[in-house]
Amino acid sequence: MEELSEAKPVILKIGGSVITDKNGELAARTEAINRLAEEIQKANVMNLIIVHGGGSFGHPTAKKYGIKNGLKENTQKMGFAETHHVMTVLNGLVMDSLVWHNIPALSVTPSSCMVTENGRIKFFEDAVLKILLKMGFVPVLYGDATLDEKMGFTVLSGDQIVSHLARKFDADKVVMGVDVDGLYDADPKVAKNPKLYAHLTLSELKKIKGTLGKSTAADVTGGMVGKIAELIPAIEQGIPVEFVNAAKPNRIYKSLVGDIVEGTLIEKE
Amino acid sequence: MEELSEAKPVILKIGGSVITDKNGELAARTEAINRLAEEIQKANVMNLIIVHGGGSFGHPTAKKYGIKNGLKENTQKMGFAETHHVMTVLNGLVMDSLVWHNIPALSVTPSSCMVTENGRIKFFEDAVLKILLKMGFVPVLYGDATLDEKMGFTVLSGDQIVSHLARKFDADKVVMGVDVDGLYDADPKVAKNPKLYAHLTLSELKKIKGTLGKSTAADVTGGMVGKIAELIPAIEQGIPVEFVNAAKPNRIYKSLVGDIVEGTLIEKE
Repeated sequence: MEELSEAKPVILKIGGSVITDKNGELAARTEAINRLAEEIQKANVMNLIIVHGGGSFGHPTAKKYGIKNGLKENTQKMGFAETHHVMTVLNGLVMDSLVWHNIPALSVTPSSCMVTENGRIKFFEDAVLKILLKMGFVPVLYGDATLDEKMGFTVLSGDQIVSHLARKFDADKVVMGVDVDGLYDADPKVAKNPKLYAHLTLSELKKIKGTLGKSTAADVTGGMVGKIAELIPAIEQGIPVEFVNAAKPNRIYKSLVGDIVEGTLIEKE
Repeated sequence: MEELSEAKPVILKIGGSVITDKNGELAARTEAINRLAEEIQKANVMNLIIVHGGGSFGHPTAKKYGIKNGLKENTQKMGFAETHHVMTVLNGLVMDSLVWHNIPALSVTPSSCMVTENGRIKFFEDAVLKILLKMGFVPVLYGDATLDEKMGFTVLSGDQIVSHLARKFDADKVVMGVDVDGLYDADPKVAKNPKLYAHLTLSELKKIKGTLGKSTAADVTGGMVGKIAELIPAIEQGIPVEFVNAAKPNRIYKSLVGDIVEGTLIEKE
């Protein structure tokens, strides 16, 4: 960690499966985007950073051209350009809604200020992000197609960005808005009577990791198992992570303001 | 100048008055955007960097909230967010057209990687831009609302970005796509028989600077006089600048491939 920002930020991840229909293609759920913008506006959290996923914008395009595994042939270059472009389109819809809900939100384009190495963030010029937070803006980032020093390019997941920012800015809390109620002892989309964990410690989380469901739709960045793997270093650093269902009204609002909410809270101890 | 890139890039500025109706509000000229994308695709220039202006997207919003003169009251914060957002919307339309014309174009968000000081670029993290050029991508930047170390925020003109990049990367040539045929001895939008300069040296340019017309519509970044002031340091460095009418078909194409074209070529000597 280079240095701490002045106040600890709250980082909100909005899953691509919430704001898009992951089984469609370029299928935004504008009503969900607008509802979440309302909840964020109502919660009025200081030092908020928002990161959203790619859903049916980034993932199918990235998959079609094999972007995650890097540059192997020249024809992929248009695929890289297209993947980044469709992500800016989804981000534009999110920004539209945030701005018209009077949230001083500024998009910060990951591929303009981050470079990865073998898929991991190697370089992140965070001068802009720091100033934005200090001035009271809400920076908004997203999973993006980024340049990679070893592979040419790759896909940088919103989850990796969340974990990176949480650790770098020593976040007060991470709110993971997903399309299920939290972490279960079996995949809630297929199991009959899965049990929701209301609270997990880091050691409990590590024990049950293997039983967590993989993402069912096309997700090039790993679904729930991938999220947990990304977040463990942040939890180890003492940052609490709360999984809540962002597809259900008021859950994100409650989590942001610190109310008790159905979901899974993960703490170091 | 920190260091030179491997090959000298060509920098193409597309004026906001060409791709938008400057007398409207958020009024894109998609047919002009598509025609220019075709010309750029046909010209197939190596090491191309594109920068576009704000036209009726950035300028009216920036003017409404007084963004250029910096942060003076809290209510401007939403205006800053809105100005950046509308610029990303215009950029999205440009990128849409470039990508669907099979140009490996990647938007690089100025406000995500540049910070100004009293309106001048103070800090520009250009790692991403350098890698993009090396890999054969076409980076696309634009006039943007940016953070400013002294003023809080301001408007960074596409023209300043053009001049900055031209000098930093020692550009082979700058093509300025505007909505007039070039530089005249009087404002072509009001004068009866203005004379077009086909060629100007730097010393000739400095002599006639005072007679160049100001932008007639809302332009917070100075119109033609502002463009010349920004470009003089690049011309002094030996970089030729050609003004051509991007609103007329094939002028940009001809200038990009080095054909003789109606316009004004400015050279150091």
